[in-house]
Amino acid sequence: AAPAGCPDVGAPGGLRYNGLMRVNGKPYRTIWLADDGRTVRIIDQTLLPHRFEIVDLRDLAAAVTAIKTMQVRGAPLIGAAAAYGICLAMTDDASDQSLDRAYDALLASRPTAVNLRWALDVMRSHLRNRRREERVEAAYRRAAEICDEDVAINSAIGDNGLEILRSAAAKKSGKDRLNVLTHCNAGWLAAVDWGTALAPIYKAHDSGIPIHVWVDETRPRNQGMSLTAWELGQHGVAHTVIADNAGGHLMQHGMVDLVIVGTDRTTARGDVCNKIGTYLKALAAKDNGVPFYVAVPSPSIDWLVDDGVAGIPIEQRDAS
Amino acid sequence: AAPAGCPDVGAPGGLRYNGLMRVNGKPYRTIWLADDGRTVRIIDQTLLPHRFEIVDLRDLAAAVTAIKTMQVRGAPLIGAAAAYGICLAMTDDASDQSLDRAYDALLASRPTAVNLRWALDVMRSHLRNRRREERVEAAYRRAAEICDEDVAINSAIGDNGLEILRSAAAKKSGKDRLNVLTHCNAGWLAAVDWGTALAPIYKAHDSGIPIHVWVDETRPRNQGMSLTAWELGQHGVAHTVIADNAGGHLMQHGMVDLVIVGTDRTTARGDVCNKIGTYLKALAAKDNGVPFYVAVPSPSIDWLVDDGVAGIPIEQRDAS
Repeated sequence: AAPAGCPDVGAPGGLRYNGLMRVNGKPYRTIWLADDGRTVRIIDQTLLPHRFEIVDLRDLAAAVTAIKTMQVRGAPLIGAAAAYGICLAMTDDASDQSLDRAYDALLASRPTAVNLRWALDVMRSHLRNRRREERVEAAYRRAAEICDEDVAINSAIGDNGLEILRSAAAKKSGKDRLNVLTHCNAGWLAAVDWGTALAPIYKAHDSGIPIHVWVDETRPRNQGMSLTAWELGQHGVAHTVIADNAGGHLMQHGMVDLVIVGTDRTTARGDVCNKIGTYLKALAAKDNGVPFYVAVPSPSIDWLVDDGVAGIPIEQRDAS
Repeated sequence: AAPAGCPDVGAPGGLRYNGLMRVNGKPYRTIWLADDGRTVRIIDQTLLPHRFEIVDLRDLAAAVTAIKTMQVRGAPLIGAAAAYGICLAMTDDASDQSLDRAYDALLASRPTAVNLRWALDVMRSHLRNRRREERVEAAYRRAAEICDEDVAINSAIGDNGLEILRSAAAKKSGKDRLNVLTHCNAGWLAAVDWGTALAPIYKAHDSGIPIHVWVDETRPRNQGMSLTAWELGQHGVAHTVIADNAGGHLMQHGMVDLVIVGTDRTTARGDVCNKIGTYLKALAAKDNGVPFYVAVPSPSIDWLVDDGVAGIPIEQRDAS
């Protein structure tokens, strides 16, 4: 069944209901199942904001490609997609070797976000000691739970963040909109629903708090310009795309009330690893006394690493 | 006559010799006179790196447009172009009213770089008390001096910076190339010759010091990617274009030995105003103990302003 507040469109097992976030007025999640209960559906995020296109993933290779080529991206959504990648592998071949092969292939698809490893560990330990004939059903059930957990976590981040935004807005005493800066996309599109950094912003907007978002363009892949601006626009939240270079200047001139970003991986001691450039904005926030928040879902915490600079592999894509 | 080291290509009055920097092996300055001794020639920098095209400026309006549309840009070159804009106005009409009109039109063409006002003040006070019939010759002579002074200043910056680079390279004891990060374009193309921030780099390269430059892309106008990378490439200096977001990360990982940037305006107390994003790199340099240098030619110092954040107008271009 759909979690509270989610429109259930009628499928069994909570697998097919759509999300809270709307595209052209229709509610969507970022990942869901087709009517066959097996085919995984995603939004091809490489085509946004120009085209909204849904892609069917029918096997492990398609899931790996979707993660590698960033058709799906964002730490929480990468975890969910990896879980469904295991499902697709099990549908094809439910053997131990197939499970291990799928685990390895998916783990190697992106290096930085720890949700990927977390979701794969959850799935493998859930399936390892089951009989082969039970594995497909068990995999789809657990993957759906991972998705629902993500929605619940993000909604809770939204509720907690809402209080922060509400009190920041109250301090402005109605003089001006609350100006929030975000980097990259840690919104609905980066998660299964709601988003991490943007969940509080959506809840604030829905509560009638006047809010405006500075959206870092986020070079080199432009996730801010292409994804964050698009999803904020779909939801009707006021926003302005800015060059990544501009954030410090806006802070120096009192035009940023607070910053909220997501995280690819947060270490045991609290070092946050997030999209390239987040560090520069954190330094500027500190230099200007601007509060800087990270929306951290628990699966993004890596309890095995302390030092975020030395201990987290940073993805480098081909220079071309 | 050409200053020492500049190939004089034969024109009278030092007005037509070309520069030290080479494009496809041929030496150029960024601004010079055609054979008629009146027409001003520039490189249309909006077309680089794709096309190298020379544009003739024949009247004041063309000079204003060239500055406004960034066919010429960079604080020192804006000053030189403004000086020649006065020359073109005098050629057309050498009256006091024409001089004031040209001063005002050129001053309004770009707001941030103080060299513009400096060069216009030099030109107007040089011409104001002369007879009309002397003004054209006097203007071209003074504009040529401004250009030659710029070359001499930049060459001196290069000599001083060379010693800094030499000692930084010595500390690396031949382990690796010296890695210098720069933001925007403060090179040959931003000045009349040599450049400010890049002058030491060119002199270090010419002295055989192994040097590699991290070139910030410099959004939103991409002066790093389009201009700095191009001119370093023409001169054979090793370089890599990076997203503006990447500099802090490179510093965290010990991949930047020092930073050199130019300046649009430096205040009396030493606040440096430079291309958007310079501040973020300065914060990261401080946080990582990376030396950060600004190559400041004296005409870029504004003795009338102390506070760089409150006192310097920052140019904002149309959002479209």
